[in-house]
Amino acid sequence: MLEQLKEEVFKANLDLVKHGLVIFTWGNVSGIDRETGLVVIKPSGVSYDTMTADDMVVVDLFGKVVEGKLKPSSDTPTHVALYRAFPNIGGVVHTHSTYATSWAQAGKDIPNIGTTHSDYFSAAIPCTRGLTQQEVEGEYEAETGKVIITRFYGLNPDYIPGVIVKNHGPFSWGKDAHDAVHNAAVMEQVAKMAYISFNINPELTMDKHLVKKHFYRKHGPGAYYGQ
Amino acid sequence: MLEQLKEEVFKANLDLVKHGLVIFTWGNVSGIDRETGLVVIKPSGVSYDTMTADDMVVVDLFGKVVEGKLKPSSDTPTHVALYRAFPNIGGVVHTHSTYATSWAQAGKDIPNIGTTHSDYFSAAIPCTRGLTQQEVEGEYEAETGKVIITRFYGLNPDYIPGVIVKNHGPFSWGKDAHDAVHNAAVMEQVAKMAYISFNINPELTMDKHLVKKHFYRKHGPGAYYGQ
Amino acid sequence: MLEQLKEEVFKANLDLVKHGLVIFTWGNVSGIDRETGLVVIKPSGVSYDTMTADDMVVVDLFGKVVEGKLKPSSDTPTHVALYRAFPNIGGVVHTHSTYATSWAQAGKDIPNIGTTHSDYFSAAIPCTRGLTQQEVEGEYEAETGKVIITRFYGLNPDYIPGVIVKNHGPFSWGKDAHDAVHNAAVMEQVAKMAYISFNINPELTMDKHLVKKHFYRKHGPGAYYGQ
Amino acid sequence: MLEQLKEEVFKANLDLVKHGLVIFTWGNVSGIDRETGLVVIKPSGVSYDTMTADDMVVVDLFGKVVEGKLKPSSDTPTHVALYRAFPNIGGVVHTHSTYATSWAQAGKDIPNIGTTHSDYFSAAIPCTRGLTQQEVEGEYEAETGKVIITRFYGLNPDYIPGVIVKNHGPFSWGKDAHDAVHNAAVMEQVAKMAYISFNINPELTMDKHLVKKHFYRKHGPGAYYGQ
Repeated sequence: MLEQLKEEVFKANLDLVKHGLVIFTWGNVSGIDRETGLVVIKPSGVSYDTMTADDMVVVDLFGKVVEGKLKPSSDTPTHVALYRAFPNIGGVVHTHSTYATSWAQAGKDIPNIGTTHSDYFSAAIPCTRGLTQQEVEGEYEAETGKVIITRFYGLNPDYIPGVIVKNHGPFSWGKDAHDAVHNAAVMEQVAKMAYISFNINPELTMDKHLVKKHFYRKHGPGAYYGQ
Repeated sequence: MLEQLKEEVFKANLDLVKHGLVIFTWGNVSGIDRETGLVVIKPSGVSYDTMTADDMVVVDLFGKVVEGKLKPSSDTPTHVALYRAFPNIGGVVHTHSTYATSWAQAGKDIPNIGTTHSDYFSAAIPCTRGLTQQEVEGEYEAETGKVIITRFYGLNPDYIPGVIVKNHGPFSWGKDAHDAVHNAAVMEQVAKMAYISFNINPELTMDKHLVKKHFYRKHGPGAYYGQ
Repeated sequence: MLEQLKEEVFKANLDLVKHGLVIFTWGNVSGIDRETGLVVIKPSGVSYDTMTADDMVVVDLFGKVVEGKLKPSSDTPTHVALYRAFPNIGGVVHTHSTYATSWAQAGKDIPNIGTTHSDYFSAAIPCTRGLTQQEVEGEYEAETGKVIITRFYGLNPDYIPGVIVKNHGPFSWGKDAHDAVHNAAVMEQVAKMAYISFNINPELTMDKHLVKKHFYRKHGPGAYYGQ
Repeated sequence: MLEQLKEEVFKANLDLVKHGLVIFTWGNVSGIDRETGLVVIKPSGVSYDTMTADDMVVVDLFGKVVEGKLKPSSDTPTHVALYRAFPNIGGVVHTHSTYATSWAQAGKDIPNIGTTHSDYFSAAIPCTRGLTQQEVEGEYEAETGKVIITRFYGLNPDYIPGVIVKNHGPFSWGKDAHDAVHNAAVMEQVAKMAYISFNINPELTMDKHLVKKHFYRKHGPGAYYGQ
């Protein structure tokens, strides 16, 4: 079932290691088949060294296992919440990458202060509020999905393909699993550069028109970057 | 004698290099056989490049050499003090890894400010007091063990599997040598992220209920992470 | 056409990856044949993994494609503006390397505070002003070239082989594509060390005579470094 | 002539790259044969990729070339000044390694704040004064040697095997070329950890008795570290 998607999701999980975004089992990637509404996701706590494409787990849009001999990632309820809320996304990634996680721990949006950021995100990368005690002690991973979705009221998830969850870490998404991993790597790099930039100049400025220019150079009908 | 444990401890020592936690001979790993009370530990000042499993030294719980042609690590008295005081641990690691050592030099506990930390440690990673002149000039390495054990009065070493010794560096432990190395790598990563996070926001906050949730998601009877 | 230059420019693009200056397609190198006035440049948005020397695009000094099956880098108008304004340069590089980009985002010149910097640059690495809304919404990439050239009024581009564009990132140049990449790597390294140095001592000082000594040890008629 | 020493010095130069202490040609190692008073040193500005043991240059204690087809390192007068002044050293290294150079640019001694530092240096790593305009414009590299030697009045170069030259970078030494490289790597690592530690806690403290203990655990008649 969904053999090609399993292969894609498996490969995207390994790419997290290749890009230096995860150590041990600290990350997970999923991909969705929008026709059937089925999601393929990494199994929970399985080492990247021994994992195979066959270990990927198939779940429905409410996280129920449809196929697979292993338990899906414990973050599965967050992934499926995002697929239900954001209709255009095809892949979701969660990591504990160093700089993006540090901004999450700091509880601050990653400000859009450069063209690198603007090439991929039309605005700051938002940080969610912290979860309440009730949310944490209830359906925690599903509630994590909800605070992300709530944070995006009035924001366009297709133009801001990632978020940081307070005291936790980054989630990103994209048109497929590969694209979501790409955005996870972008988030880590812009998080690092924003950290350094504010250390150099806490009073730095960024013009809105430059953000807009770079974002639309790569996105939408007027895009002219690439082939 | 204890050939399998020697192999495990040898491999765990090499893993310190693989994880980027040591350069030169700046680290050591030991493992204990609880049935016999014998400890296998790295020899002192031997290069990781030329070391073999056979070079591992067997000592008793008071650090006396039982087997081995080389001198055991100069930190042996610290290792055995921890094995005597913490009955559930099976492996001990000492490194001078960059960020954990920097917190030790700063003389400050590494605060628990994120879920990455909470997944492994139920609270801050404690920093010991400095050793007195008398302690330093006496049985220094044994005294180092004692200040660690003193620091853990009222703390659970099974829930807080590591410590930083003031002006020195990190010690970690685990159910075996491999697990202790894993915790050493976790300490280094959370030390790095805590450093960056406080640079971004010195006023950051972390909720106790989130710490608890993540710790018990991976530990104890209600754990549901992994297979 | 210009097969040797294509090979050089292709190799110089790959060297950006080797030096850790770019991830994904975040950089581009060009080289000029001064006899014909033709410029060879990386195609836009093509992965370094699959790119070949044949994919390089030949444009004239106004960015018009002369040969090549792919679209040239979207930064082509900036490259050709620099070739027209700075008659001695033979190669141009643009990257989003971490520390140089962070100084650009901070909107500050990278001060010349050490002999490493002075070995290559006779003064600070200048940061341009931000582009106006009109410039950004007009011929953006050509305007980027203009603000760089304007910034160099009174400065010698042969003695200061690089610049950072506000909120964007570094451009560097040199006698050929290889040399421009070398200068890009130098900029990243001195940007990193300047960041750390000012964190250690915000009041640090540097003597003009030391800058002069190191620069002229490697440049001009009195140079005595190297073979 | 001195084939074995050439091989050692050549290998030690390559080790600078292996330890991540130099890029391009930004470093040099020498070694001395104390019987003949001849020094073997890296040639100036030659790439580490193409260099062979045969390219090493033999000079006398005043820097005059005795054998070799290439020009010796431009820093040769600094190296020989150190060999003349410090009778016990057998190897000298100069690099522009990131953190040690940043402390040099900041113009501050690297304080001894941990046991990692104390294992190798009995005190802070001193920073020289800046050279005067006259010194810089005169026999610059020889004068660099003189300010280092002046900085060591009252200090023991055998117990403090390195220095940072203001606005320039680190020099280290040791019993031979290999040992000098080892100390260069130690300096870089302790420079990095001191930087991070003071960022965490500008008010940190270190006890003199701990410095002494660690230094003499590895040095002198009472040493008990290693085999």
